[in-house]
Amino acid sequence: MSSFGTLFRVTTYGESHCKSVGCIVDGVPPGMQLTEADVQPQLSRRRPGQSKLSTPRNEKDQVHIQSGTENGLTLGSPIGMLVANEDHRPHDYSETDLYPRPSHADYTYIQKYGAKSASGGGRSSARETIGRVAAGAVAEKFLKLANGVEIVAFVSSIGKVSMDRNPESPEFQKILNTITREEVDETGPIRCPDASVRDLMVKEIEHYRDSKDSIGGVVTCVVRNCPVGLGEPCFDKFEATLAHAMLSLPATKGFEFGSGFLGTAIPGSKHNDPFYHDETTGRLRTTTNFSGGVQGGITNGENIYFSVAFKSAATISQEQSTATYDGKDGVLAARGRHDPSVTPRAVPIVESMVALVLADQLLIQKSREFSRSIVSK
Amino acid sequence: MSSFGTLFRVTTYGESHCKSVGCIVDGVPPGMQLTEADVQPQLSRRRPGQSKLSTPRNEKDQVHIQSGTENGLTLGSPIGMLVANEDHRPHDYSETDLYPRPSHADYTYIQKYGAKSASGGGRSSARETIGRVAAGAVAEKFLKLANGVEIVAFVSSIGKVSMDRNPESPEFQKILNTITREEVDETGPIRCPDASVRDLMVKEIEHYRDSKDSIGGVVTCVVRNCPVGLGEPCFDKFEATLAHAMLSLPATKGFEFGSGFLGTAIPGSKHNDPFYHDETTGRLRTTTNFSGGVQGGITNGENIYFSVAFKSAATISQEQSTATYDGKDGVLAARGRHDPSVTPRAVPIVESMVALVLADQLLIQKSREFSRSIVSK
Amino acid sequence: MSSFGTLFRVTTYGESHCKSVGCIVDGVPPGMQLTEADVQPQLSRRRPGQSKLSTPRNEKDQVHIQSGTENGLTLGSPIGMLVANEDHRPHDYSETDLYPRPSHADYTYIQKYGAKSASGGGRSSARETIGRVAAGAVAEKFLKLANGVEIVAFVSSIGKVSMDRNPESPEFQKILNTITREEVDETGPIRCPDASVRDLMVKEIEHYRDSKDSIGGVVTCVVRNCPVGLGEPCFDKFEATLAHAMLSLPATKGFEFGSGFLGTAIPGSKHNDPFYHDETTGRLRTTTNFSGGVQGGITNGENIYFSVAFKSAATISQEQSTATYDGKDGVLAARGRHDPSVTPRAVPIVESMVALVLADQLLIQKSREFSRSIVSK
Amino acid sequence: MSSFGTLFRVTTYGESHCKSVGCIVDGVPPGMQLTEADVQPQLSRRRPGQSKLSTPRNEKDQVHIQSGTENGLTLGSPIGMLVANEDHRPHDYSETDLYPRPSHADYTYIQKYGAKSASGGGRSSARETIGRVAAGAVAEKFLKLANGVEIVAFVSSIGKVSMDRNPESPEFQKILNTITREEVDETGPIRCPDASVRDLMVKEIEHYRDSKDSIGGVVTCVVRNCPVGLGEPCFDKFEATLAHAMLSLPATKGFEFGSGFLGTAIPGSKHNDPFYHDETTGRLRTTTNFSGGVQGGITNGENIYFSVAFKSAATISQEQSTATYDGKDGVLAARGRHDPSVTPRAVPIVESMVALVLADQLLIQKSREFSRSIVSK
Repeated sequence: MSSFGTLFRVTTYGESHCKSVGCIVDGVPPGMQLTEADVQPQLSRRRPGQSKLSTPRNEKDQVHIQSGTENGLTLGSPIGMLVANEDHRPHDYSETDLYPRPSHADYTYIQKYGAKSASGGGRSSARETIGRVAAGAVAEKFLKLANGVEIVAFVSSIGKVSMDRNPESPEFQKILNTITREEVDETGPIRCPDASVRDLMVKEIEHYRDSKDSIGGVVTCVVRNCPVGLGEPCFDKFEATLAHAMLSLPATKGFEFGSGFLGTAIPGSKHNDPFYHDETTGRLRTTTNFSGGVQGGITNGENIYFSVAFKSAATISQEQSTATYDGKDGVLAARGRHDPSVTPRAVPIVESMVALVLADQLLIQKSREFSRSIVSK
Repeated sequence: MSSFGTLFRVTTYGESHCKSVGCIVDGVPPGMQLTEADVQPQLSRRRPGQSKLSTPRNEKDQVHIQSGTENGLTLGSPIGMLVANEDHRPHDYSETDLYPRPSHADYTYIQKYGAKSASGGGRSSARETIGRVAAGAVAEKFLKLANGVEIVAFVSSIGKVSMDRNPESPEFQKILNTITREEVDETGPIRCPDASVRDLMVKEIEHYRDSKDSIGGVVTCVVRNCPVGLGEPCFDKFEATLAHAMLSLPATKGFEFGSGFLGTAIPGSKHNDPFYHDETTGRLRTTTNFSGGVQGGITNGENIYFSVAFKSAATISQEQSTATYDGKDGVLAARGRHDPSVTPRAVPIVESMVALVLADQLLIQKSREFSRSIVSK
Repeated sequence: MSSFGTLFRVTTYGESHCKSVGCIVDGVPPGMQLTEADVQPQLSRRRPGQSKLSTPRNEKDQVHIQSGTENGLTLGSPIGMLVANEDHRPHDYSETDLYPRPSHADYTYIQKYGAKSASGGGRSSARETIGRVAAGAVAEKFLKLANGVEIVAFVSSIGKVSMDRNPESPEFQKILNTITREEVDETGPIRCPDASVRDLMVKEIEHYRDSKDSIGGVVTCVVRNCPVGLGEPCFDKFEATLAHAMLSLPATKGFEFGSGFLGTAIPGSKHNDPFYHDETTGRLRTTTNFSGGVQGGITNGENIYFSVAFKSAATISQEQSTATYDGKDGVLAARGRHDPSVTPRAVPIVESMVALVLADQLLIQKSREFSRSIVSK
Repeated sequence: MSSFGTLFRVTTYGESHCKSVGCIVDGVPPGMQLTEADVQPQLSRRRPGQSKLSTPRNEKDQVHIQSGTENGLTLGSPIGMLVANEDHRPHDYSETDLYPRPSHADYTYIQKYGAKSASGGGRSSARETIGRVAAGAVAEKFLKLANGVEIVAFVSSIGKVSMDRNPESPEFQKILNTITREEVDETGPIRCPDASVRDLMVKEIEHYRDSKDSIGGVVTCVVRNCPVGLGEPCFDKFEATLAHAMLSLPATKGFEFGSGFLGTAIPGSKHNDPFYHDETTGRLRTTTNFSGGVQGGITNGENIYFSVAFKSAATISQEQSTATYDGKDGVLAARGRHDPSVTPRAVPIVESMVALVLADQLLIQKSREFSRSIVSK
């Protein structure tokens, strides 16, 4: 379904060529200052056409709040938001009527629905993420007010060029501790804070762009100042809902948090994060953070960090040998210019989804704290 | 919460030292043959104490069906199942009353609940997975009847010893195409089908066991004969619910499917899976399967394969420097003998969770197929 | 929250004075013909200002489909729909800033949210029901295609003037068997098919209108051609979800189905509906229908009929002694002209909600039928 | 499905002749004193065989807590509870294999599931309510601690004998204000606090018992000290979830709250509840309470009161002319002795369901209060 969340819930609508795309955000706290100016920045960061590294289409993507605010304050009622699609005529994509595009959703859509939108990617289009990003901006504003939560994502690999994401690396941990969204954006459209690999990443993308090809990458994200106690011990572990959120993004192939896949080779004696008493916060903290801020499914107040793998974009500007819907071998012609790497644009989308997870889990946990406080009186 | 699924739903209860652990499975089709004999095998595969590689505790774990069947046939009503805890007195674990065990859920539980079970891991204990495995066995029986679905998981890495999981490797794809559960079990408690690394894995575990340490690993799983069309295009993409399921398992740190993290470096021109007409099935198939059986969030009928990272077990048989709950530095003494690697035991648990995801998505998709068939008449 | 349904789900947004009100309808079958022309009729029936019996405000309420259709056919993706609010400036209702209006949601909103929309009823405004009616029209179209389902609601009482709703009355059962929506509308704005009380009802409304007062009433609804087997035996009994839907409508105070409250005095020997073999349908039917088409929470194929009580509208055109927010006694002045009875306008809203319940339950049941067919092969 | 609630959730299992019936209660606050002694009293009040007015079967119904508590305190983890079925052999009900019992769930079950339990009512059996009552007792304990919530239900009509339930009656309102559970029980098995009709009710039941017939009735319930602000303005209005809960009980035919169906004839000028400043509580209260404690879907702190209609029991001790499953006319013989009126036994079941609704809504509202407090700082 098109909804995500229990007490803070987003529902999205829209595909690439309909009248508008948008969302309803339910469970937003009342009395919070909110205007389009709070939502637009992340939408603009998500927008394609910002550099020669990404697709030159220019979608203006201005958000319009429909409901749920009055005089710049939220009412506690659902926030309806929409972004008009500038060109909402179904294109005349005659060839894609013959061919299911390889590794797109065309074939599976036809199988599932017996129908697909005549052009573009329908619901699996990246355009659907506009609703998520708009909702995420609202969630993020709330989280900042609630606990000073900071969420910063960045590109950590492009193709074979990768930052050192080894959880034991002090440099990596330092970046997680300090990186800001402003610093990420200052690195330009590549959005990689590591100067030692940044130019190589740009070259990697340019190489594939010039080859009429595409290349994947990894986005890493850190959450600082996350409250202790979010997440549930069983099916709704914090990392489980986070993984759900991330793998619901188009083009994702993997998720790891804390020490991740590499961490499976670190023995328990080292991987276990020892506790110490932190004088500043007055509570227990850990000297290392292989756990990635979550233990037993519940946040422990340390940095939450995780990485998401994005595959090479399926749309490429070269011919591909494949088959038609009715099973004839053929060659799908190249068409137009396309984004050689979607990974940098995924940065604000990843931030938005983690904000949605956090806002929902925070609301749930607050009811748990209440119920606990009652019975222990 | 303790429930998972929409139309095929499991709810679990129980922790390590209460009277029993178990589950309620809701949405089981009526008229299906089902007795304890269908459920016990996977519970027995999950059971610890099966070899010198795992913990010597012997929990007998006999399942008792409470409801939902009559004369060996399901009624369509919820299946209640329970497994008694043999020793349900809370242990006298005086030291763990002083220390939150590093990288266990002790600290986060106390923060969240203000309480924790006096011993063992409470709900984050691996014992909670009994309910999941029992429910998964029911789901798997249904899937086998519905589409001949085959689910086989195996150990693909232990510590630094790893099978070749490169998605481009023909050997890896061959294993995915052919491996059976019987073959996995014939490899002994290590549950690794790759003879070239199996003994090294055993040695790796023995090494850490002898060092009173623990080591992590990766479980890889393949689903064959999955129907086309499962999963939804947006928040409930097939891989998103699968990731949710896997990261809800204790000790998991990552999930990847299809080409996964490695696949981010494979350019689109190669990563795109070309279609061809398959004469046997009469439908389009793909010549490669970097997509891992899912495109646009929806299954395409190819093998679904994915890997799950399990961290090194937090319980180790050596002293650890850490802090007490009230912030004093100290050393948490070693105690008892523990499982040096939980990864091999995770094999049936991973299989169970994927069965639960599939059964639920299959039921949902069948209602979609109905609704589509109606309006297109 | 603002969502209703599991597999066929509506999410609404909007209050009386924001930019627009609308909804997202998720789970709509693909390939169904759908344009605004399918949705507008029920919205127009819901619209106020249709006669001197209702409020003279004229809201045009033209619906605009935003997404989910292409070339007049549904895509299987969410249908976004919106209706602009013509006057979306918050009014200058100075008095209602001082007084919580008696039996409105003002006081409870302020208590719950600490905020309320400056004018009108916010989310408890009848204007919120626009999203439900638009979604209900989509559901109804599907139900008609799926099973020829007919849904007809009508006014059965206004104040003390009531049709005979005794379940033992042959006249009442005859109306339930035959009444059409066209016949209801032909009775004029009162929407009561019983000529013997219709004029008295109109007089009753006129009496209260002339007294600057308001009066409540009852809407009765029948569903014909409902498939057998909808609903679940326990918490999601068909009548339970139906009651949920009806009591979620503004101004409702009660719900009864089948023999209802009166039926509690009919002894079992008479109340039990005997079975007989029906040659036309080839299945068992019942000679009476005190059950109201549902037995054990599951539809049996007989007519579903139920009634919903609507209280007298809280907005009246006379002064009311009450207290200000800060606790001072005072008199809330009358203001404007208001609808003396909302009951007739509730007719299409009741129809819409029952359609939403039915569409969702039908999709759920179809997955049950599939699972049963599989295992019994 | 067999689950109810969002943050405080019960899932039940079991039918009349399986090994046990029971439930899992999820979301119970940690640190609360809880033993079987807290749960047993309501189970015992629910138990049949307590007087000559009800069925003489004696089910002992001792509850056993399986999980979620330690040393008499809740852990915050799910509470598993079970009650053994004493006789869990499927009976040899040969006749009910031929006949769908009129107004039972036999026919609809067979249609829906293609199977039914060989005897008794399966999931539609009143025995399923054991899980609800056990869960409700836990909820009620929490509510008492949280706000001193008092829930008292009683029989308000049997057949044609009825208490005065007119919302304008001062006597009725006085009963609602003062009645205690102890006073209800002191009236004997009839559970009616109104001495003027009590004996007539008993006679009514005896009359139908002696006629081998059954008779229905109404249970009225009041909730005192309910916190302000529970419920949501749209689909999850407090009264909507309450109606859902009540109509999910076996044998129910209707629900009304506050002024109910009678209130539709009270004009707005009288029905509107004027506010006044209450010195004791320091907040606004209303001089009348036609609203029944809920306005705009949200509780206002006044008494919540509502009534639930229970039909005459379908099981009667006399012959009934009906048809066999395969469509032949016939007479279903009488068998055994049966409860002539289930209404008095429904009293604790109604109390349990309202407690489940309240506990869930209270947890949800507490997260809303938190989020509001954050942003308005």
